[in-house]
Formats: sequence, C-alpha cells, structure tokens
Amino acid sequence: MFALSTPDQSVHCCIVLVNTRNPLNIGAVARAMSNFGFTDLRLVQPYEPSFREARSAVGASEILQQAREYKTVADAVGDCTLVVGTTSADRRQLQQELRALREAANMIRRQAKTGRVALLFGSEKRGLSNEDFSHCHWLLRIPTREEHGSMNLGQAVAVCLYELARSAGQRPESALTGSKAEPKAGAPNQAVLEALTSSLVEASQISGWKKSAISAEKTRQMVMRQGLSAADAELWLSMLRQILWKLKQD
Amino acid sequence: MFALSTPDQSVHCCIVLVNTRNPLNIGAVARAMSNFGFTDLRLVQPYEPSFREARSAVGASEILQQAREYKTVADAVGDCTLVVGTTSADRRQLQQELRALREAANMIRRQAKTGRVALLFGSEKRGLSNEDFSHCHWLLRIPTREEHGSMNLGQAVAVCLYELARSAGQRPESALTGSKAEPKAGAPNQAVLEALTSSLVEASQISGWKKSAISAEKTRQMVMRQGLSAADAELWLSMLRQILWKLKQD
Repeated sequence: MFALSTPDQSVHCCIVLVNTRNPLNIGAVARAMSNFGFTDLRLVQPYEPSFREARSAVGASEILQQAREYKTVADAVGDCTLVVGTTSADRRQLQQELRALREAANMIRRQAKTGRVALLFGSEKRGLSNEDFSHCHWLLRIPTREEHGSMNLGQAVAVCLYELARSAGQRPESALTGSKAEPKAGAPNQAVLEALTSSLVEASQISGWKKSAISAEKTRQMVMRQGLSAADAELWLSMLRQILWKLKQD
Repeated sequence: MFALSTPDQSVHCCIVLVNTRNPLNIGAVARAMSNFGFTDLRLVQPYEPSFREARSAVGASEILQQAREYKTVADAVGDCTLVVGTTSADRRQLQQELRALREAANMIRRQAKTGRVALLFGSEKRGLSNEDFSHCHWLLRIPTREEHGSMNLGQAVAVCLYELARSAGQRPESALTGSKAEPKAGAPNQAVLEALTSSLVEASQISGWKKSAISAEKTRQMVMRQGLSAADAELWLSMLRQILWKLKQD
C-alpha cells in the first residue's frame, strides 16, 4: 500500500550537487535518494575533504559509493535532455521561468519518460550561480514562506524527491501546457547543446562580431530556448564546426 | 504566487520531538518549521546538552528560543485534540491505524480548524516507543521504499510540513470518511483524556479488578477510541473522580 509505485522513474532523473561543502549534507542527500528510490548522484566540484568524508562514513550507501564527480556543470549534465535548477529565489532577479515544485514535478516526470533529467542543487551558502543557471531549461522553487525561503540542502532534496515520487502514479495535470523551453521527445542532450554553444561563441569571437562580448551564459540560454530537435541540433552543429574550421584557416 | 496561502494553519499544529539526541536535527526541524510557517515546537525529554547546544547556536531561530520542554508525552500534548504519531513502520507490528502522509495531511488540516493537532516524531535511533504510540489517535507514514523506509529526522519533518502546507488551499478529498478514532469538532483535549485514563487505571487497581494488570497504554487507547465529546469526557471524569475518592475512603 505504501510502496512507491514506479521505481523505474528514478533511472531517468539524476541529482546534481554543485559545490557542496558539508559532508553531512552529501550523506543526507544520498539517504533521501535511497528513501525515495533514486540512485544517480553527481557532484560538481564538491569540497574534496567533504566528499571523501561522506564516502568513507560508516554505512555510506551504495549511492554515495557510486556517485560520480565532475569538473563542470556542462560535464555533469551532458547526457540529459532536461536540466532543472533549484532556487529559493529570494533575492536574485531571475531571467528564467520559475515553477512551483508541484507543477515542476509533473513536467520532470513527463520528460523522464523519454530522456534523462538533471535536478541541480547549489552550495549551502550561495545556491546556484548565474553561470550554473545558464545550463538550466527552467528553475523550480519549493513554496516556502517569503520571510524564510532558503531551505537546508538535505531537506530541500527530500521534499523534491517526495513530490516526484508522490504523484508518480497520477496523470499529468491537463492544465499543463508545453512551453518553448520544455524539450520535446527526441530532444538533443545537453552535451550537443553545449557543443553548439561553445562553437557559436568561438565563431563569433574569431569573426570579430561586434557583440562577441555577449556572455557564454546568454548564448547558452538562447540555444536552449530554441527547443531544437536532436536531428536539427546535430545538423546545426556540423554546420558550425565547418564554419569554425574555415574561420581558423584564415 | 509561491507564498504559502494559509499561514494561520500553523497556529493549530505543533511539532513534538520525543527523546531527540542530535542538536543538528533539532536545528534542522526548527528551520523546516520556519520555512513552512509553523511555530510551535515542543520537546519531550530531549538529550539536555543537545537542546542547550541547538538553542545557543549562532542564528538559532525564534522557534528554537521559544520551544518548550516537557517531561512526558502526556504533558506535551495535553492541550491537543488530535495526536498523530509518525513511523517508518518497517518492523513493528502496529496496533493503530496507519495512514499515508497525503491522506493524513488532509485529516490534520480538517482537525486543525477546530482544535490543536500534535505531530509526534521519535528519536533518531528508535523512533517512537509503544508507550509514545499509545498517546496517538492514529499514525502516519511517509511513503518511502520498503527496502529503506527510515528517514532522517529533519528531512521527515520537512516532508510532512511541505505536504501540510502544499494542499492547504485544497478541499479535503471527498473520498475521505471519518473514522472512530478521528476526533470530532468539540473533542476533549488530551489532558482530559489522560486524566480519564489515569483515574480509570487507579480505580481498577484499588478495587482489585482481576484484569487490573492491563497496561495504561491499552487503557489509554480504549479511552481514545471512544471518540468522546468534550462534555461527555468531563462528565465521565467527574464520575470517576468521585468513585476514586470513595474507593480511597475505605
């Protein structure tokens, strides 16, 4: 009666911790993942002694043992087709669409049927940076009090995974409609979009484009907003690579 | 859009931590309460140095400063009309009705409109004892994997409060029907039921009733199952007190 009905959803949603410092928090995240049936934990530049400590703790879970480490967010989400950032959204002026957890969970579940989803959590002190956000299709927020929005990391992960597991058996709400930033079935993974982004940035710089000072973050977001199909992304990438090759010849 | 819609629900639901040992957990519970708009924290026999440490921590919240300490569960829930215990229910043979969090939250919200609700969490290692459970009208469980049901204390509290706040604006599900153990409006508070219980136990012992070895826990549960109105409970209590007085005269 109380068992989770769809454990296989977990296969397609990974938890990405960016710059986490506290080993207790890393352990707490792994525990919540195990409670709710998620297994894929990824860490981007964790504070090294913390990760070691969390991993070597007595009773450290298999999840923690198998957690992978990455140098950049781009590397960590390379095989994903939907990247969602979490934020308490208390101070920042956000550029991206922000969704409440309940709606976000519905969209994540839908996407996880055809591709892998990454759910990003920032460091304890600062959360995710603008650079981190630029890798995200959209952002989610747990509805908390405005006066005290910022949650403890382990608790935030637990609440998100509870909501993801909670309505796993339910149909997506009919009121939800797709948005431009929501990848469709057959969406390109992030590695392709990242290659597109860097090729575009490099090409515009080499060619001395007036606005080439435009940041990689903005370029990345522009690419992600287009909602390219996997085939179109590959096509565009091969064109850009050719252009780049030519530019470098001169 | 993301603010909690009904902060005043919090007034009527208190969090009761029984025998908590870890100061970090006490702090994490207070933080989750603040995130979701709950303010009434009660501790039953916390490990003393932990409570002191949590309270004196830099930035300890007002919730923690105002948390009250109690010697017994009965004292802590005396002013409540619904007492709900939490459990991972992995090993124990449970005597009481067990509800999944989603349904439980609906019932708690309904009761919190007319009376105060207590939500009990046990110690990190052992959870709530059978004696603790005997003070509860029914139990709730967060749906986790059967293989790994037991949650971290701070995370369990965060998930429960998220669910309580989540659907605060929704109507209770029509499929939910009242049960005998659910107190009605105008229910007696736990202090009255506890006085009834102890009077009944004492009277049966003094009078040499054959089954007077029946435990206080079982008697308490019997009293709670009756779903007495506040008026009837007072009436019964005054009768019992008179009987006790007479018994002690002989």
